[in-house]
Amino acid sequence: MLTTNEYFDGNVKSIALKNGELPATVGVMDVGEYSFGTSEKETMTVVSGELVVKLPDQDEWKSFTDGASFIVEANKSFDLKVGVQTAYLCVYG
Amino acid sequence: MLTTNEYFDGNVKSIALKNGELPATVGVMDVGEYSFGTSEKETMTVVSGELVVKLPDQDEWKSFTDGASFIVEANKSFDLKVGVQTAYLCVYG
Repeated sequence: MLTTNEYFDGNVKSIALKNGELPATVGVMDVGEYSFGTSEKETMTVVSGELVVKLPDQDEWKSFTDGASFIVEANKSFDLKVGVQTAYLCVYG
Repeated sequence: MLTTNEYFDGNVKSIALKNGELPATVGVMDVGEYSFGTSEKETMTVVSGELVVKLPDQDEWKSFTDGASFIVEANKSFDLKVGVQTAYLCVYG
Protein backbone atom coordinates (compact mmCIF):
# COMPACT_ATOMS: atom_id res chain seq x y z
CA MET A 1 0.00 0.00 0.00
CA LEU A 2 1.30 3.44 -0.92
CA THR A 3 1.68 5.90 1.94
CA THR A 4 0.48 9.46 1.61
CA ASN A 5 1.30 12.40 3.86
CA GLU A 6 0.11 15.94 4.16
CA TYR A 7 1.63 19.05 5.69
CA PHE A 8 0.65 22.67 6.23
CA ASP A 9 -3.08 21.94 6.56
CA GLY A 10 -3.10 19.92 3.35
CA ASN A 11 -1.36 22.55 1.24
CA VAL A 12 1.50 20.13 0.65
CA LYS A 13 0.76 16.47 -0.05
CA SER A 14 3.07 13.64 -0.94
CA ILE A 15 3.12 9.95 -1.84
CA ALA A 16 6.05 7.76 -0.79
CA LEU A 17 7.96 5.44 -3.09
CA LYS A 18 11.32 3.78 -3.48
CA ASN A 19 13.71 5.47 -5.92
CA GLY A 20 16.13 2.66 -6.65
CA GLU A 21 17.51 1.90 -3.21
CA LEU A 22 16.57 5.26 -1.72
CA PRO A 23 13.27 6.32 -0.17
CA ALA A 24 11.57 9.19 -1.95
CA THR A 25 8.34 11.10 -2.14
CA VAL A 26 6.56 12.72 -5.04
CA GLY A 27 4.23 15.52 -4.09
CA VAL A 28 2.51 18.78 -4.81
CA MET A 29 2.84 22.14 -3.11
CA ASP A 30 -0.04 24.52 -3.41
CA VAL A 31 0.57 28.27 -3.70
CA GLY A 32 2.06 29.56 -0.45
CA GLU A 33 5.19 29.98 1.64
CA TYR A 34 6.68 27.13 3.62
CA SER A 35 9.62 26.28 5.84
CA PHE A 36 10.83 22.70 5.95
CA GLY A 37 13.33 21.00 8.22
CA THR A 38 15.35 18.01 7.09
CA SER A 39 16.13 14.97 9.20
CA GLU A 40 18.37 13.57 6.48
CA LYS A 41 19.87 14.76 3.21
CA GLU A 42 17.23 15.62 0.63
CA THR A 43 17.57 16.03 -3.12
CA MET A 44 14.58 17.98 -4.41
CA THR A 45 13.73 18.07 -8.11
CA VAL A 46 11.00 20.23 -9.60
CA VAL A 47 8.75 18.05 -11.78
CA SER A 48 6.31 20.76 -12.87
CA GLY A 49 6.05 24.38 -11.78
CA GLU A 50 8.50 26.54 -9.84
CA LEU A 51 9.99 26.58 -6.37
CA VAL A 52 11.68 29.76 -5.16
CA VAL A 53 14.05 28.60 -2.46
CA LYS A 54 16.21 30.11 0.25
CA LEU A 55 18.69 27.38 1.05
CA PRO A 56 20.20 26.93 4.52
CA ASP A 57 22.70 29.64 5.45
CA GLN A 58 21.91 31.56 2.25
CA ASP A 59 20.50 35.06 2.02
CA GLU A 60 19.32 34.91 -1.56
CA TRP A 61 16.22 33.37 -3.05
CA LYS A 62 16.80 31.20 -6.08
CA SER A 63 14.29 29.89 -8.63
CA PHE A 64 14.09 26.23 -9.65
CA THR A 65 11.82 25.18 -12.51
CA ASP A 66 11.01 21.92 -14.34
CA GLY A 67 13.89 19.49 -14.12
CA ALA A 68 16.07 21.59 -11.79
CA SER A 69 17.30 20.15 -8.49
CA PHE A 70 18.74 21.35 -5.22
CA ILE A 71 20.22 19.50 -2.25
CA VAL A 72 19.63 20.19 1.43
CA GLU A 73 21.85 18.48 3.98
CA ALA A 74 20.47 16.76 7.09
CA ASN A 75 19.24 18.78 10.06
CA LYS A 76 18.84 22.01 8.14
CA SER A 77 15.85 24.17 7.42
CA PHE A 78 15.00 25.89 4.17
CA ASP A 79 12.31 28.27 2.98
CA LEU A 80 10.12 28.04 -0.09
CA LYS A 81 7.90 30.46 -1.96
CA VAL A 82 5.47 28.75 -4.31
CA GLY A 83 3.64 30.94 -6.82
CA VAL A 84 2.04 28.18 -8.89
CA GLN A 85 1.01 24.67 -7.89
CA THR A 86 4.23 22.70 -8.17
CA ALA A 87 5.01 19.00 -8.35
CA TYR A 88 8.32 17.79 -6.94
CA LEU A 89 10.34 14.65 -6.36
CA CYS A 90 12.24 14.43 -3.07
CA VAL A 91 14.87 11.70 -2.65
CA TYR A 92 16.18 11.03 0.86
CA GLY A 93 19.71 10.01 1.75
CA MET B 1 -6.98 22.20 -1.05
CA LEU B 2 -5.12 19.61 -3.11
CA THR B 3 -7.18 16.71 -4.36
CA THR B 4 -5.92 13.15 -4.10
CA ASN B 5 -7.25 10.07 -5.85
CA GLU B 6 -6.58 6.41 -5.65
CA TYR B 7 -7.18 3.54 -8.05
CA PHE B 8 -6.74 -0.23 -8.11
CA ASP B 9 -7.31 -0.66 -4.37
CA GLY B 10 -4.77 2.04 -3.51
CA ASN B 11 -1.99 0.62 -5.68
CA VAL B 12 -2.05 3.80 -7.75
CA LYS B 13 -2.39 7.17 -6.02
CA SER B 14 -2.27 10.66 -7.44
CA ILE B 15 -2.41 14.32 -6.45
CA ALA B 16 -3.97 16.88 -8.80
CA LEU B 17 -2.35 20.15 -9.84
CA LYS B 18 -2.37 22.70 -12.61
CA ASN B 19 0.47 22.41 -15.11
CA GLY B 20 0.45 25.86 -16.66
CA GLU B 21 -3.06 26.06 -18.09
CA LEU B 22 -3.59 22.32 -18.19
CA PRO B 23 -4.83 20.03 -15.43
CA ALA B 24 -2.36 17.38 -14.37
CA THR B 25 -1.71 14.76 -11.74
CA VAL B 26 1.48 13.52 -10.19
CA GLY B 27 1.29 10.05 -8.75
CA VAL B 28 2.86 6.75 -7.87
CA MET B 29 2.13 3.28 -9.22
CA ASP B 30 3.03 0.35 -7.04
CA VAL B 31 4.33 -2.86 -8.57
CA GLY B 32 1.59 -4.49 -10.63
CA GLU B 33 -0.26 -4.58 -13.94
CA TYR B 34 -2.90 -2.03 -14.81
CA SER B 35 -5.21 -1.01 -17.63
CA PHE B 36 -6.28 2.61 -17.87
CA GLY B 37 -8.88 4.27 -20.05
CA THR B 38 -8.59 7.90 -21.12
CA SER B 39 -11.44 10.38 -21.28
CA GLU B 40 -9.16 13.01 -22.80
CA LYS B 41 -5.68 13.17 -24.28
CA GLU B 42 -3.00 12.31 -21.72
CA THR B 43 0.73 12.97 -21.81
CA MET B 44 2.45 10.69 -19.32
CA THR B 45 6.02 11.32 -18.20
CA VAL B 46 8.00 8.96 -15.98
CA VAL B 47 9.45 10.93 -13.06
CA SER B 48 11.21 8.03 -11.33
CA GLY B 49 11.13 4.33 -12.11
CA GLU B 50 9.90 2.49 -15.18
CA LEU B 51 6.61 1.97 -16.97
CA VAL B 52 6.34 -0.82 -19.52
CA VAL B 53 3.47 0.19 -21.73
CA LYS B 54 1.31 -1.30 -24.43
CA LEU B 55 -0.16 1.70 -26.19
CA PRO B 56 -3.59 1.63 -27.85
CA ASP B 57 -3.70 -0.45 -31.04
CA GLN B 58 -0.11 -1.60 -30.52
CA ASP B 59 1.02 -5.18 -30.04
CA GLU B 60 4.41 -4.44 -28.53
CA TRP B 61 5.37 -3.46 -25.00
CA LYS B 62 7.71 -0.51 -24.72
CA SER B 63 9.76 0.67 -21.74
CA PHE B 64 9.72 4.26 -20.50
CA THR B 65 12.15 5.37 -17.79
CA ASP B 66 13.00 8.63 -16.01
CA GLY B 67 12.18 11.62 -18.17
CA ALA B 68 10.56 9.66 -21.00
CA SER B 69 7.01 10.47 -22.13
CA PHE B 70 4.22 8.92 -24.11
CA ILE B 71 0.89 10.26 -25.33
CA VAL B 72 -2.47 8.52 -25.28
CA GLU B 73 -5.35 10.05 -27.21
CA ALA B 74 -8.83 10.46 -25.73
CA ASN B 75 -11.17 7.49 -25.35
CA LYS B 76 -8.44 4.88 -25.63
CA SER B 77 -7.20 2.25 -23.23
CA PHE B 78 -3.62 1.26 -22.56
CA ASP B 79 -1.89 -1.39 -20.48
CA LEU B 80 0.96 -0.97 -18.03
CA LYS B 81 3.39 -3.34 -16.35
CA VAL B 82 5.13 -1.82 -13.36
CA GLY B 83 8.11 -3.71 -11.92
CA VAL B 84 9.33 -1.03 -9.48
CA GLN B 85 7.38 1.68 -7.67
CA THR B 86 7.16 4.45 -10.24
CA ALA B 87 6.36 8.14 -10.02
CA TYR B 88 4.72 9.80 -13.00
CA LEU B 89 3.33 13.11 -14.21
CA CYS B 90 0.15 12.99 -16.27
CA VAL B 91 -0.95 16.13 -18.14
CA TYR B 92 -4.49 16.20 -19.54
CA GLY B 93 -5.56 17.88 -22.77
